[in-house]
Amino acid sequence: MEKELRGACIIGQSGGPTSVINSSAYGVIRTALDSESITKVYGAAHGIKGVLEDKLYDMDFEDARELELLMNTPSSELGSCRYKMADPDVDDTDYRRLLEIFKKYDVRYFFYNGGNDSMDTCDKVSRFMAKSGYECRVMGVPKTIDNDLNNTDHCPGFASAAKYIATSCAEIYKDAHVYDTGMVCIIEIMGRHAGWLTASAALAGISGCAPDLIYLPETNFDMDEFVASVERVYKERGNCIVAVSEGVHYADGSFVSEAKTSATDGFGHAQLGGLASLLANVVKERTGVKVRGIELSLLQRCAAHAASAVDVEEAFMAGKVAVESAVAGETGKMVAFKRADGGEYKCEYVLVPLTSVANFEKKVPAEWITPDGAGVTQDFIDYALPLIQGSVERPTENGLPRYARLKKVLAK
Amino acid sequence: MEKELRGACIIGQSGGPTSVINSSAYGVIRTALDSESITKVYGAAHGIKGVLEDKLYDMDFEDARELELLMNTPSSELGSCRYKMADPDVDDTDYRRLLEIFKKYDVRYFFYNGGNDSMDTCDKVSRFMAKSGYECRVMGVPKTIDNDLNNTDHCPGFASAAKYIATSCAEIYKDAHVYDTGMVCIIEIMGRHAGWLTASAALAGISGCAPDLIYLPETNFDMDEFVASVERVYKERGNCIVAVSEGVHYADGSFVSEAKTSATDGFGHAQLGGLASLLANVVKERTGVKVRGIELSLLQRCAAHAASAVDVEEAFMAGKVAVESAVAGETGKMVAFKRADGGEYKCEYVLVPLTSVANFEKKVPAEWITPDGAGVTQDFIDYALPLIQGSVERPTENGLPRYARLKKVLAK
Repeated sequence: MEKELRGACIIGQSGGPTSVINSSAYGVIRTALDSESITKVYGAAHGIKGVLEDKLYDMDFEDARELELLMNTPSSELGSCRYKMADPDVDDTDYRRLLEIFKKYDVRYFFYNGGNDSMDTCDKVSRFMAKSGYECRVMGVPKTIDNDLNNTDHCPGFASAAKYIATSCAEIYKDAHVYDTGMVCIIEIMGRHAGWLTASAALAGISGCAPDLIYLPETNFDMDEFVASVERVYKERGNCIVAVSEGVHYADGSFVSEAKTSATDGFGHAQLGGLASLLANVVKERTGVKVRGIELSLLQRCAAHAASAVDVEEAFMAGKVAVESAVAGETGKMVAFKRADGGEYKCEYVLVPLTSVANFEKKVPAEWITPDGAGVTQDFIDYALPLIQGSVERPTENGLPRYARLKKVLAK
Repeated sequence: MEKELRGACIIGQSGGPTSVINSSAYGVIRTALDSESITKVYGAAHGIKGVLEDKLYDMDFEDARELELLMNTPSSELGSCRYKMADPDVDDTDYRRLLEIFKKYDVRYFFYNGGNDSMDTCDKVSRFMAKSGYECRVMGVPKTIDNDLNNTDHCPGFASAAKYIATSCAEIYKDAHVYDTGMVCIIEIMGRHAGWLTASAALAGISGCAPDLIYLPETNFDMDEFVASVERVYKERGNCIVAVSEGVHYADGSFVSEAKTSATDGFGHAQLGGLASLLANVVKERTGVKVRGIELSLLQRCAAHAASAVDVEEAFMAGKVAVESAVAGETGKMVAFKRADGGEYKCEYVLVPLTSVANFEKKVPAEWITPDGAGVTQDFIDYALPLIQGSVERPTENGLPRYARLKKVLAK
């Protein structure tokens, strides 16, 4: 154990929101408020931007019950940003400003909750502080529905999105099979470079409603093969449900979603239907069957009402372990998830260097994709199934979710 | 009480599916199986088409536990159809065929579960049977997420869709407010002629997340006013969430969604993005702000995982009361919902003539729409709020919904 470091902490949220990112924030805030080493807890308004702009919320003003409701609140309650920090060796302006703010508030702990880019930011801040001789422990808390962070079994946020996607795909399957006249249904799922979320559609098989075809961005997409597969399935089963990643691309790397010209409507406005509607149009034109395109859009990353209990708990623990580890002397690390050995699923919380996480993208292994490139293997199901277990008793008010209502009092 | 009528019954499902239509089916099937007057319970495959084609499932073969799981299963488990029966005075072919089937299986009770058109079918069947002297009691069981049936306070299926829409709008609101850079988000909601579902987006206000603007098909849409309103809200609040009915139309009655030409993409395929994406494009072109269009699509009518407990119970009761009333001698009626007098919400089940229901469309009252045509009043909230209360403990298997698995053995 290192010598005790006393001082304030900052928690910042970054990147796209998830159903459980606030569970991690609560893990950090609650644990920090209860820590004897941490003298003050600040929430950064809109991530690193809030630190640079000296917009810090003082958590002492918040009601304990409202803070606890963060466990029930989707999206990033403190606000997020997509601010890319420069390389400190090239331009250290932002870093010197950070240092100034850290000194002003005696910040000795910095927790940053986000995905790939955020871990990169976190890493740079950590190295700058070390270099400048200012003692500050910097910890990354993982978050991304895309599940593409390196060096961790999975990422908080993924499981809840996966559960929502699988449940929604099962419900769409039910709906699309109601008439005896056939139908093709194409469901567009997030994940531009990694197919974890789209693969999760296969979990609907648990409810007896697996999509017939699943296309991940890990393989090359071929439009003719796609249409031929849809036609074959439709002929065999009288219906065809397709799950497709927004990031599917041709062999030359170009996104299928971008392979269209700007067409115009009656007002002269460009048409910007998504990939699902593009593929639906292709199938309709070439086969003449009834087709519907559905884009799960933002719903898949913020559907806290359908969150996985495992995910909510692990997200909270990621925040808690980050604080406990920092207080114990760790810095420059990210909390990662390790699947314990043995038959039953158990998550172990470990620390990995931020440098080993930043700027990698973990993809679905090629051997988990079926040889025809239109499905996933049992390996994926075995991997994902433990993560989506359990649902959470969500507090409601008048039949609708009761979210945290923070006062967000700016620190002086 | 009429004299006892002994014989078999048929239950058929018709029109678009809902989250709770199978709760009504279970209400009919369970009550009929337990009735001493009803000798046999048949489920029609794909509604009236299944009767005409002599495709009836014998419910005696079904496991009681699986039947009970119908309470948990969205969509129409027996299959649906959109078959329009001819006027029997013009062409009675189908009706004579129905009579033949009814006689073959000694069917003395016919329960039809659906919306406007289905009540019309039900009414015609009822009148034909009466005219032909074949004793058969015909009862309508209401169903429609559109909530547009006449002579009933509300319709089974509406409340669960409303709850899902409000919850999803709250989640989208949270997600769309995460960055300090502004955003306009346009959410397209079902209901081509009646705005009940779109109005339900206002319920998200309970979670502190009401849409800024709400457009129902009950008023005329004006594109310039719409864009001006979005701009005004965006300037004031830095964000704008819009809920819009798929059925909004201009003063001349033409649908906004259809006011576009068939544009083509790089493959020469017509672009068929929906209304949300059309409006998003208009706002983007005219204002330059970041815009996202979201279509709730099929999800809103089949999201059983988020069903309202009140709705599930009332849907079941609608089926149960239909059977009990028919056994007691009623015919040619639909089970309707009446809000009991007094402060606390209570639903009373009453019977109304099928003729008073068929071929009307109940709209949102003009006085429940705000004068600017871009919102709803407290009257709507007071009306809808009691209906979306409670959630149901849904059986799951491996973290995903466990749906009914019926054997569907065809009657000989």
